Amino acid sequence: MALIVQKYGGTSVGSVERIQNVADKVIRTVDEGHQVVVVVSAMSGETNRLTAMAQEIQPRPNPREMDVLLSTGEQVTIALLSMALMQRGYPAVSYTGWQVPILTNNVHTKARIEKINDDKLRSELNAGKIVVVAGFQGVTLNNEITTLGRGGSDTTAVALAAALKADECQIYTDVDGVYTTDPRVVPNARRLDVITYDEMLELASLGAKVLQIRSVEFASKYRVPLRVLSSMKEGGGTLITSEDKVMEKPLISGIAFNRDEAKLMILGVPDKPGVAYQIVGPISDANIDIDMIIQNQGVDGTTDFTFTVHRNDCPAALEILKRQAEKLGAREVLADDGIVKVSLVGIGMKSHAGIAARMFEVLAERGINIQMIGTTEIKISVIIEEKYLEEAVQALHDAFELER
Amino acid sequence: MALIVQKYGGTSVGSVERIQNVADKVIRTVDEGHQVVVVVSAMSGETNRLTAMAQEIQPRPNPREMDVLLSTGEQVTIALLSMALMQRGYPAVSYTGWQVPILTNNVHTKARIEKINDDKLRSELNAGKIVVVAGFQGVTLNNEITTLGRGGSDTTAVALAAALKADECQIYTDVDGVYTTDPRVVPNARRLDVITYDEMLELASLGAKVLQIRSVEFASKYRVPLRVLSSMKEGGGTLITSEDKVMEKPLISGIAFNRDEAKLMILGVPDKPGVAYQIVGPISDANIDIDMIIQNQGVDGTTDFTFTVHRNDCPAALEILKRQAEKLGAREVLADDGIVKVSLVGIGMKSHAGIAARMFEVLAERGINIQMIGTTEIKISVIIEEKYLEEAVQALHDAFELER
Repeated sequence: MALIVQKYGGTSVGSVERIQNVADKVIRTVDEGHQVVVVVSAMSGETNRLTAMAQEIQPRPNPREMDVLLSTGEQVTIALLSMALMQRGYPAVSYTGWQVPILTNNVHTKARIEKINDDKLRSELNAGKIVVVAGFQGVTLNNEITTLGRGGSDTTAVALAAALKADECQIYTDVDGVYTTDPRVVPNARRLDVITYDEMLELASLGAKVLQIRSVEFASKYRVPLRVLSSMKEGGGTLITSEDKVMEKPLISGIAFNRDEAKLMILGVPDKPGVAYQIVGPISDANIDIDMIIQNQGVDGTTDFTFTVHRNDCPAALEILKRQAEKLGAREVLADDGIVKVSLVGIGMKSHAGIAARMFEVLAERGINIQMIGTTEIKISVIIEEKYLEEAVQALHDAFELER
Repeated sequence: MALIVQKYGGTSVGSVERIQNVADKVIRTVDEGHQVVVVVSAMSGETNRLTAMAQEIQPRPNPREMDVLLSTGEQVTIALLSMALMQRGYPAVSYTGWQVPILTNNVHTKARIEKINDDKLRSELNAGKIVVVAGFQGVTLNNEITTLGRGGSDTTAVALAAALKADECQIYTDVDGVYTTDPRVVPNARRLDVITYDEMLELASLGAKVLQIRSVEFASKYRVPLRVLSSMKEGGGTLITSEDKVMEKPLISGIAFNRDEAKLMILGVPDKPGVAYQIVGPISDANIDIDMIIQNQGVDGTTDFTFTVHRNDCPAALEILKRQAEKLGAREVLADDGIVKVSLVGIGMKSHAGIAARMFEVLAERGINIQMIGTTEIKISVIIEEKYLEEAVQALHDAFELER
């Protein structure tokens, strides 16, 4: 008998009929002899409906009241799913965030979980019940309702799995696992059976939007085996686990890409100490996240900076950069939002040389120019012209035999 | 500066626009220099929407989960109303039932309030805030969510007013007060400025559906001055208070009537001890409420029983009565659902004789036959043929000069 935490997102519980399907799925796991804690989101559409009413009343809704409002969404789902389980003859009981309690800090609309008291859940499980917990929400020590922000239900599931020392945390979603790359770009992209937390973090942050980064970080920190599965299709999904649990370590696990970036350049900056800070500082101050950043030292005592930001932030970043260029006496400022980032991710890179060389070779063979390069221990990213995206990803997928 | 508890029902908060109107109304009271606690119901339609989903999943929804489900309704309203107040520049804060906390017993879907801890509300009021509380809901000592059943938001308002020793509890509804009788039947029916708790209880229980009986009982018990007002129209409404606060005591306050009853008769029952119980017992056992009941002793050693039940219960009661008639050797069983009950209510009756006589005289003058009579200290009820309802109520309204 294992203890499994299952999480079903908004689409999976988007109607009465779908809630019935989720009940059937949960029961299948119970019938296999396992204890199950189910974490659910608000029914899809509900959060938008509530947010629209709030914004009609208060254009910038008060965060405390927003949490009171939005937390009703999951509360509806836990009650309905518990009823569906009982109707099938399985004892079930619902828990809101404050009833567990899932204690958080007091940052409304993006609270962080600080502590989970698992006494009640444990005694419900021991009494043979399926426990249905509201995702996305918590409570402060002062009895204020909080929500965890985007992807919060995944975080709730992982945090509960950690607190209960569950054998597995299963995230049911609308994809059936983590793929070597986006199947819409590479038709023979392959579902991975297993992947490490680190690889998943690199893939998720690069745009393979299967799981929220925060929940993967959480799972990694507490060593919770995490499995992504489809709530519609059968299949074992993808298990995300620690490196020591992954037997066969493939060179490359996947190829991520991101169309949401724009590249900014400031050229011919007189090179002296502190110049990097004078360029990056004002952009950070404007709450604009910088992703990749490179600096080339010129021969004439000047230097060139290139960095990427989210495309939406490009106009604002360009404004700031122009002001700074004037102050610093730089020669030129350029922006380009016709670029993409393509990244190879794989834990096998750590022990294998030549991955980067092979990547550059594949791109060179196709005449694809590399504009920027960035690396981590398990990732190589390049910035290329947007029009080459599909060709580059397909070529790399083939070259590293990811379809095998 | 007074402390006022205001309650707005589902229709009054049925849309974003109406919530805005309620905010304006609340602010008017605050601007007059008062502290205000607002109790709100779920937006109209919301409870039905949630109940329909529940019943689709579980034909007899689990009561605990039903409370978890339905309590979200008011939680949405408190958040939205608090936002509307803040948007107008007035500090406001919402409280769910468990946050107050409003402690109840553990009878799900019809819990009773046991204790209210007013510490938090008081400190919010002292900090200059408008406090918006979810009606209809509470929490058990064991942190289970409960709801109070029909009319529960009125009860919440009165209970909060009692706990906070408020100066007045104002119930905003879709009528502008308590009338001498139904204006649809008697066009010159008059709105009462003031009425006692006891009169209101007799009027309410007889079908003048302005306030739930339970909330009036509660107000009476804790001496909370209760005012019924319209959330749409201006006007002072009707104040419901204790007898010692009512200066001028009118003979008759109002005329109530009820079309929902049916009359059952069992005739020629051999008269011996225990026979009343053998008739009434099985009907109560079937959860059928009996309203009026009279017994006439015959001269031939038999007796006749007549009683009234809700019309919907008439067929079931008739079945039971037929079975009992056979057992008891009664002569005949009859049912009549073409009757109505008309009641004069007035605290002045206590000290004035001749009210009943005048009532019977008025009806006799019009040839209206009285089938049953029942009295309390402040009420006389008669059962008459349904077709005479309008005529009887109008004639009594005129005779007792209620339009003055």
